[in-house]
Amino acid sequence: MFNKYKFLVAGVNTKVPLKNKKMVNYINFDNAATTPPFMSVLKEILSFSNWYSSIHRGKGYKSQLSSDLYDESREIVANFVGADINDKEIIYVKNATEAINMLSNILRKDNSNSVVLSTCMEHHSNDLPWRKGNIDYVKIDDLGRLDLNDLEQKLIKYDGDVKLVTVTGVSNVTGYKNPIHKIAKIAHKYNSKILVDGAQLVPHTKVNMKSVNSPDHIDYLVFSAHKMYAPFGSGVLIGPKSTFQKNGPDYVGGGTVDIVTPETVIWADPPDKDEAGTPNLMGVIALTKAIKTLSLINMKNLEKYEDNLLHYAMRSMKHIPDIKIYGDTDNIKDRTSIVPFNIEGISHEAVAKMLSAEYGIGVRNGCFCAQPYIQNLLNVSKEEIKEKMLIPNSPKPGMVRVSFGIYNDFNEIDVLIKALYKLVNNKQYYIDKYEDKNAIHRC
Amino acid sequence: MFNKYKFLVAGVNTKVPLKNKKMVNYINFDNAATTPPFMSVLKEILSFSNWYSSIHRGKGYKSQLSSDLYDESREIVANFVGADINDKEIIYVKNATEAINMLSNILRKDNSNSVVLSTCMEHHSNDLPWRKGNIDYVKIDDLGRLDLNDLEQKLIKYDGDVKLVTVTGVSNVTGYKNPIHKIAKIAHKYNSKILVDGAQLVPHTKVNMKSVNSPDHIDYLVFSAHKMYAPFGSGVLIGPKSTFQKNGPDYVGGGTVDIVTPETVIWADPPDKDEAGTPNLMGVIALTKAIKTLSLINMKNLEKYEDNLLHYAMRSMKHIPDIKIYGDTDNIKDRTSIVPFNIEGISHEAVAKMLSAEYGIGVRNGCFCAQPYIQNLLNVSKEEIKEKMLIPNSPKPGMVRVSFGIYNDFNEIDVLIKALYKLVNNKQYYIDKYEDKNAIHRC
Repeated sequence: MFNKYKFLVAGVNTKVPLKNKKMVNYINFDNAATTPPFMSVLKEILSFSNWYSSIHRGKGYKSQLSSDLYDESREIVANFVGADINDKEIIYVKNATEAINMLSNILRKDNSNSVVLSTCMEHHSNDLPWRKGNIDYVKIDDLGRLDLNDLEQKLIKYDGDVKLVTVTGVSNVTGYKNPIHKIAKIAHKYNSKILVDGAQLVPHTKVNMKSVNSPDHIDYLVFSAHKMYAPFGSGVLIGPKSTFQKNGPDYVGGGTVDIVTPETVIWADPPDKDEAGTPNLMGVIALTKAIKTLSLINMKNLEKYEDNLLHYAMRSMKHIPDIKIYGDTDNIKDRTSIVPFNIEGISHEAVAKMLSAEYGIGVRNGCFCAQPYIQNLLNVSKEEIKEKMLIPNSPKPGMVRVSFGIYNDFNEIDVLIKALYKLVNNKQYYIDKYEDKNAIHRC
Repeated sequence: MFNKYKFLVAGVNTKVPLKNKKMVNYINFDNAATTPPFMSVLKEILSFSNWYSSIHRGKGYKSQLSSDLYDESREIVANFVGADINDKEIIYVKNATEAINMLSNILRKDNSNSVVLSTCMEHHSNDLPWRKGNIDYVKIDDLGRLDLNDLEQKLIKYDGDVKLVTVTGVSNVTGYKNPIHKIAKIAHKYNSKILVDGAQLVPHTKVNMKSVNSPDHIDYLVFSAHKMYAPFGSGVLIGPKSTFQKNGPDYVGGGTVDIVTPETVIWADPPDKDEAGTPNLMGVIALTKAIKTLSLINMKNLEKYEDNLLHYAMRSMKHIPDIKIYGDTDNIKDRTSIVPFNIEGISHEAVAKMLSAEYGIGVRNGCFCAQPYIQNLLNVSKEEIKEKMLIPNSPKPGMVRVSFGIYNDFNEIDVLIKALYKLVNNKQYYIDKYEDKNAIHRC
């Protein structure tokens, strides 16, 4: 079960100490949070460093070269996600969260009274920025999937007032892949637009925003390079040119203007207008190299391989005694490489600690910046929220999450399975060792 | 005249083609725009890549290590600029422009009717963000220096309504170093606070924000890593804890909250609250390594060396026929490593092109994102602004700027001087070759 993708990323052979001082190969199962850099990205940064220079207004050879690379990169990004550059702006940001905040502020200038339809399965970053205006949430069903019927009902109910449906491409908790084109078609039917939070989608599957003439095209897409093997502070906001042409920038300053006098400001054209300050050229070089590497792997191959990892993990984990895996575990066709779970009788915090200290496995626990969704999946009642959640320093409900990347392999999953069996078969021992009644479980 | 600092940065031996196809060592005199990475920074990124992981809520060994490095970095940054971490928050941003926008939005929540005093020598990034509210500008004198008398007069005139004086530490056009502590003392006398835009200051001189008990302490400081040999998309906003504690974040989402329910949001404490989305850990690793490298060089040594470069350049450039150097060229004690100039009879654009094409020298021309200051220095009248500036595609007034970094040397300045003599002695030849009457001189 050799993984030919393993050595694409940095640090796969790094040894870390266990609690017993033994050194083992680290197993990183927290790829939904961030991914290690591709070796190709590091090499590109090193070789480009000799040419790195100021972009756009420098006249030197290196500046011209840097500017060209920066400008040409937009087409590489557009092609990767099927964005039509005649219709769409490619705007560089620092991460998907910034992109959504910017877009929310820009759109609100036009439509201060309109409604944004978010969903009950969103990351905080695709929820909180929209709460500055009118917002409602599309429901989820008992297994945590989005309820498309409720989406349509809400669009009907708001009678044309919903100007944007904003939905995650893939849940960062359950890994459910939403039917974004189906959702787009419904949104467009009611004269709304759609934003897809692609932070968990773009790194794991082939995305095609499609031509604006397709009824199921995607209007807006955001994603972050640090979740796709290029962790150097860059991300992307894609949207119709018209959105950015008719509005001033959210953040202003260097680069956003053509003319400034003490009394007058004439904004530059997008995308410059919407990239205040010196752009993160290195971040963009890293992102484009990651895109090239992902394209060489081929996103279809990547998806297939990660699907195999998920099936392998799900099949084995399901049968571990006392485990509760969230979401649908029978039909996992629409799930990507994430498994959220709990072990009965031991906190998510203690499980995560045990996996790290005894096996060198890195996972995340808590609420993964998606608290309302977690509250739903865990059936936490409003009363319990008041009791447990709103009290500072009280233990918080949550889950353990393992999430895979292209460089993970079946052997690593075997280690996880072994660890979990060890845990459930010696539960009291590990409770005594890792449970901390005074711990604050951060959400 | 050997420069022992030369090989600290990447790309100093890179050869670039001239117009005549000859290959020469590139001379980068655009350091005020951005600086190449330190070799030490690149090495640090490479070796840290094996450990890079998710921070704050990951439980794995790499995550814990990454979190520790991230958290501890704030003290390194604070120490570098003399910020008292008991009183100040160190907030990571993507660049100084973002920092000022964030701060402007946060401060305006409290003081929507107050006045911000900016100055007539600011970069757009320390001017435009403040125009969303009431703003006035401290005048400059005939040589382009800040008029401290006018500052005090304006503070008196606004009678306590000025809640913030915001001023650049070093002008990105003339390189004037403002007396920030004197300005701070005056601002505090009238119950105002001071923000120093440190983008051009922090990379070139030892900064000490001082204890809040000193009457001349600095309240807020912003700067960018990409101008201090760590171009990986990070920057810093420093300000009193109280500013951030009492206000919600500007951008919201992942990381900014403790508790989220469909109805409630409880913000996290700063600095987390003010760093929405996944932090740029690599950018922070790069920044802290650059700070360590600068500290090893010692900022006093750096300042002395760059002063020598400036004196050497000024002394030679002054005597070039037909040159106009802006700002005080006799008393240059308060100027840092920037020389802005024009050659009579030939546009700034053509000069910059000639230097690149004939000598491999990279400079910047135009208005350097400081148009109001440039308009002042060039004595462009309001009528001319209307005539020349506000018409799209008209040639714009501007300057050529050379700006030095620690790795530049006297030999490189000699090449510049030689080039400029060649240019003025064969002006018509180079006008015919590089002047483009149809060119749009971007500001």
